[in-house]
Amino acid sequence: MEFSKDSILEKAEKLAEILEIPQSEVRKIEENLGFCYGAPEITGEVAAKAIDHTVLSFSAGKDDVLKICGEAKKYGFKAVCINPVWVRTAFDFRRENGADFKIATVIDFPLGASTAAAKMAESAAAAADGADEIDVVINIGLVKSGMFKECFEILKNTMKTKAYTKVILETSELSEDEKIYAALIAVFAGADMLKTSTGVNGKATVGDVRLLRMIAGNRLGVKAAGGIRDKETLIAMMNAGADRIGCSSSVSIMEKW
Amino acid sequence: MEFSKDSILEKAEKLAEILEIPQSEVRKIEENLGFCYGAPEITGEVAAKAIDHTVLSFSAGKDDVLKICGEAKKYGFKAVCINPVWVRTAFDFRRENGADFKIATVIDFPLGASTAAAKMAESAAAAADGADEIDVVINIGLVKSGMFKECFEILKNTMKTKAYTKVILETSELSEDEKIYAALIAVFAGADMLKTSTGVNGKATVGDVRLLRMIAGNRLGVKAAGGIRDKETLIAMMNAGADRIGCSSSVSIMEKW
Repeated sequence: MEFSKDSILEKAEKLAEILEIPQSEVRKIEENLGFCYGAPEITGEVAAKAIDHTVLSFSAGKDDVLKICGEAKKYGFKAVCINPVWVRTAFDFRRENGADFKIATVIDFPLGASTAAAKMAESAAAAADGADEIDVVINIGLVKSGMFKECFEILKNTMKTKAYTKVILETSELSEDEKIYAALIAVFAGADMLKTSTGVNGKATVGDVRLLRMIAGNRLGVKAAGGIRDKETLIAMMNAGADRIGCSSSVSIMEKW
Repeated sequence: MEFSKDSILEKAEKLAEILEIPQSEVRKIEENLGFCYGAPEITGEVAAKAIDHTVLSFSAGKDDVLKICGEAKKYGFKAVCINPVWVRTAFDFRRENGADFKIATVIDFPLGASTAAAKMAESAAAAADGADEIDVVINIGLVKSGMFKECFEILKNTMKTKAYTKVILETSELSEDEKIYAALIAVFAGADMLKTSTGVNGKATVGDVRLLRMIAGNRLGVKAAGGIRDKETLIAMMNAGADRIGCSSSVSIMEKW
């Protein structure tokens, strides 16, 4: 599906009114909609530097976290992405082993159905424990209920942590219109990066990555996550506009590069 | 699988030492291990009064929450179980419609992998919004890593909210030994009820319900959740020792009673 600039701009203007945001912010989006994204040549090194090496499963324990930290150091991955309770473990590993990966954690994950208070406290604790980046799930149910203002306020409060923030939109749960509204809410709230999916539920698609890159322009990053298990899919996502990849199969991808 | 009282008691004694809990607490568990559970005759009314009518999906919106509130009123369900962001919506519905169901919400759901600060803030906000009961996921990864003390401390802090607290053990992710340790940690931390599963990931089994009832004795409740989609399964769970049932198919079950 192709998205027209006009339909995105129209939604941005409508949303700015609802959220009581100055139209100058809409103009920033408008300027960027003309931006033509050119993906870099994707070598193994470029790919590694785009990967958030991820373990978020129900049963992940300390050993699993230490294992992916070791792998992140070995392969030069951009970041590890782990659950909040393990941030300190990764932080200690990084210090003790002289590694330089970023530590990313997930907030209100995967449901995106908690309160501002919960999201703020979880983010603040993660930052205090040593997280550099937070991947926060937008309140999906609020988007689907057309409660854009409530969704925006919660997200904006969550941003107060001042960590580098990726907003997970869970595009697979959203209609085409909802995807645009959700992405715009994230931009207006101050996101650093737009992220397609939790990976628990839905998968990234090339179409969704293209849409997010169109809205992100060259101001924000775009992270594709969910279902990226081989080199071909990773390259397709990066060519479509993703400059970050959430991935659990990172080592097997690197070994085949 | 049958569990021996001795193996449970042995673990309780070991755990009490690790958690620095007086052995008198172990004696309370010991006294209750002899308790012989007799399920009540399960009429439709008894079943309804045991059901937490639940909607926790990714895409649940305001209309879905209002719908299950209306159904809870109509069928006399014990509680609605909803995501934290919707507690206020259910609270307003209940007040405006003179209903008397309890409002239950989920904490650190479904992964059970967040920090004490996050769990505490999420619980406190839920209680402030009007939640009567919280279903909190135990830190599964800490249990699996043998980090019982850390798991206990987080759970105990979460209990400070003083809402009626069900601890979700996610039994499907645990070994038989881990199930016992997790249940005992919940008992020692002050749980009001032991709950088998998130329902997102694993299902309740009759064997797990029996084990939890054995450990709960007649002091605590037992909630079976996950995969309970018909009358027969519901009855089997209640006969095995569950006095609360987490269920999304509640209306279709009631209609066939």
